[in-house]
Amino acid sequence: MGCPLASQTLNPVDRKNHALEQIAQTLEQNIAPILAANQTDLEQARTDGLPLPLINRLKLDEAKVRSMITGVRSVAALGEPVGVRQLHRELDTDLILERITVPLGVLGVIFEARPDAVTQIAALAIKSGNGAILKGGKEALHSCEVLVNLIQTALNNTAVSPATIELVTTRAEVLELLRLERDIDLIIPRGSNDFVRFIQANTKIPVLGHADGLCHLFIDESADLDMAVKVTIDSKTQYPAACNAIETLLVHSAIAPEFLALVLPQLADKKVEVRGCASTLELFPGLKVATEEDWQTEYCDLILAIKIVATLEEAIDHINTYGSKHTEAIVTNNPTNADRFRQRVDAAGVYHNCSTRFADGFRYGFGAEVGISTQKMPPRGPVGLEGLVTYRYYLSGRGQTVAEYTIKSFTHRDL
Amino acid sequence: MGCPLASQTLNPVDRKNHALEQIAQTLEQNIAPILAANQTDLEQARTDGLPLPLINRLKLDEAKVRSMITGVRSVAALGEPVGVRQLHRELDTDLILERITVPLGVLGVIFEARPDAVTQIAALAIKSGNGAILKGGKEALHSCEVLVNLIQTALNNTAVSPATIELVTTRAEVLELLRLERDIDLIIPRGSNDFVRFIQANTKIPVLGHADGLCHLFIDESADLDMAVKVTIDSKTQYPAACNAIETLLVHSAIAPEFLALVLPQLADKKVEVRGCASTLELFPGLKVATEEDWQTEYCDLILAIKIVATLEEAIDHINTYGSKHTEAIVTNNPTNADRFRQRVDAAGVYHNCSTRFADGFRYGFGAEVGISTQKMPPRGPVGLEGLVTYRYYLSGRGQTVAEYTIKSFTHRDL
Repeated sequence: MGCPLASQTLNPVDRKNHALEQIAQTLEQNIAPILAANQTDLEQARTDGLPLPLINRLKLDEAKVRSMITGVRSVAALGEPVGVRQLHRELDTDLILERITVPLGVLGVIFEARPDAVTQIAALAIKSGNGAILKGGKEALHSCEVLVNLIQTALNNTAVSPATIELVTTRAEVLELLRLERDIDLIIPRGSNDFVRFIQANTKIPVLGHADGLCHLFIDESADLDMAVKVTIDSKTQYPAACNAIETLLVHSAIAPEFLALVLPQLADKKVEVRGCASTLELFPGLKVATEEDWQTEYCDLILAIKIVATLEEAIDHINTYGSKHTEAIVTNNPTNADRFRQRVDAAGVYHNCSTRFADGFRYGFGAEVGISTQKMPPRGPVGLEGLVTYRYYLSGRGQTVAEYTIKSFTHRDL
Repeated sequence: MGCPLASQTLNPVDRKNHALEQIAQTLEQNIAPILAANQTDLEQARTDGLPLPLINRLKLDEAKVRSMITGVRSVAALGEPVGVRQLHRELDTDLILERITVPLGVLGVIFEARPDAVTQIAALAIKSGNGAILKGGKEALHSCEVLVNLIQTALNNTAVSPATIELVTTRAEVLELLRLERDIDLIIPRGSNDFVRFIQANTKIPVLGHADGLCHLFIDESADLDMAVKVTIDSKTQYPAACNAIETLLVHSAIAPEFLALVLPQLADKKVEVRGCASTLELFPGLKVATEEDWQTEYCDLILAIKIVATLEEAIDHINTYGSKHTEAIVTNNPTNADRFRQRVDAAGVYHNCSTRFADGFRYGFGAEVGISTQKMPPRGPVGLEGLVTYRYYLSGRGQTVAEYTIKSFTHRDL
């Protein structure tokens, strides 16, 4: 039940969590209309002959909606990202500097198909104190509309304004959104690599996301080969469409015959198509040949390129040439080589003796993942709620002027 | 004296500081050639009829060079920005996540006139483990060349490669530099607002800097008027060309007659040209009139626009409409109003009862200022060495796969 008067007496953190709970309850009470609207979208999608993977991502059922509701409640349970004091310093007596986290402002969220993105992004936006403008694909129009209407209805009974979450439904508006540099502070795209690349190329607004996930695994000469096989299979096959799955396996020549003899049958069991470099084909002539294009390709599929390298350095150079700075891993029992790999490989995640598939906000313990960034500047890698806040410096005094400090010193004492 | 063998035995932090000390000593031993090269530039600048402020910024003398050398040593004395562990978490037994700061990579530094930027940026780049490509204006060519040559000579005797610092001297290369998205990780511009705006508009590389510094000071109805006068004079006149000087003074109508009667004579003493809104002119008919254009103008000069507002909200709205999100201040003895100003004004710095001129990395105690950013995303406001590093996530395991965690839980225990 909405309880607007009671909500006004809550502190700001509890008000946001109250709003999220209202959304969860309103969604729970309206599962039937959500599924009905989704059914309308699905029928249209089938009439339009949309590809099956897109239809699968579009499709909601009761279990999916309940997991969306659980998602909203789990965002409410996260630590409060706003109002965190990151610095507290006396510049001089009664001249106190603080750096405090504040919401970014307005998020522009552009996504394909998946209506579950609506509740997830709305929850993250509310928890971080931001507004959100949502632009879904037209294939999910009815699903998105019913979800946003329910969210706004739920917010009517809370201290969070229903205007916090807005849906943009007409067709031509993506490019318009991307031009709103003064109104939108961060673009969050949810979709294919090409979709993200298009958005990055067409806006001056910061974009939280990555177009490419071209990850490598290097099996060093001193690797535990059983571990290497296990990590290879997981990194390639546990979810091949994920951005943190590997595309190229680099293998040290000293262990290549033995290791490949172990791993190739297991890859074949998992229906992985293997493409090898010239040296790989000398050892295993039956394989397809990998070309320059393979080193540059994110397959998002059960395909793996294999390259045999003569040294650790050759592996590192290959990664720094072709990698997308997402996640790169080495399997080795040689700590010096592991350290050298860590030092020299430039990526958001550099792993040792574990699967690349761990690159994920939930697995890192962030509670939520807003996106994975492959840019160099922070935030980088899996980004949780901290990616949706910025900070202000607050300085409070009793009339101090800078002119005084031409003769006087600052104390610069952290409090 | 250079001591290459000894430097190899130092730890990485000491190696960088040793390199900075070598630079300081080499510059100390070569003050005469530095001044001679600068003299060549100055003569050319006078021949070319360059404006006096540019010539002043170009000019070096022994005191200036000695202060540049002190600057290099003070960067060496700063805390180490690289290798800082920002997160240390057990995801599960023997699966350890760390987030460690690393250098950004390569800084592209583009500056006008000031040859002192060379030593400052070179020192900051070395301390943060980055390479730097420096592009100075042609008016400072000889000065920059001698400085970079001395820096490279000094680095010959250290563990830091002389190739770390490179100077680009030909004319047409600014636009080329701005296109090197794959090679340059951050652009740092040093120059006029128009110069920074040009750079921001012509690159996809992140730019650390701000084109505008349109700051306001609001004198609330409950202000201590003597304090308000003092803060106004400092914010406007202590260094009017600075980005953190105010351009517009907002005055609550309840105290406008009394306050303006106090402050106007002091502004006149400091040769400040005042331009008033209609209400200001009703009270003081002799003043120039401020137009819409004045609210949008960063004078960088002894000119001040004054606007009388009826409420705190009107002041906040004016600031959020015209401000450049740099630094905004209120003078008030009403804590509720101060708090409301803090909550609602969106700027990198929001100040209460002190001069806007405190917005500066040195005054904040950062030891160095790489730039001031007015973007919303971090880093924001005055940026110290932390703006020149990013981080990597390192994950280290003993062969764990993600598939195991479909049935197993993470521990997510901070270490």
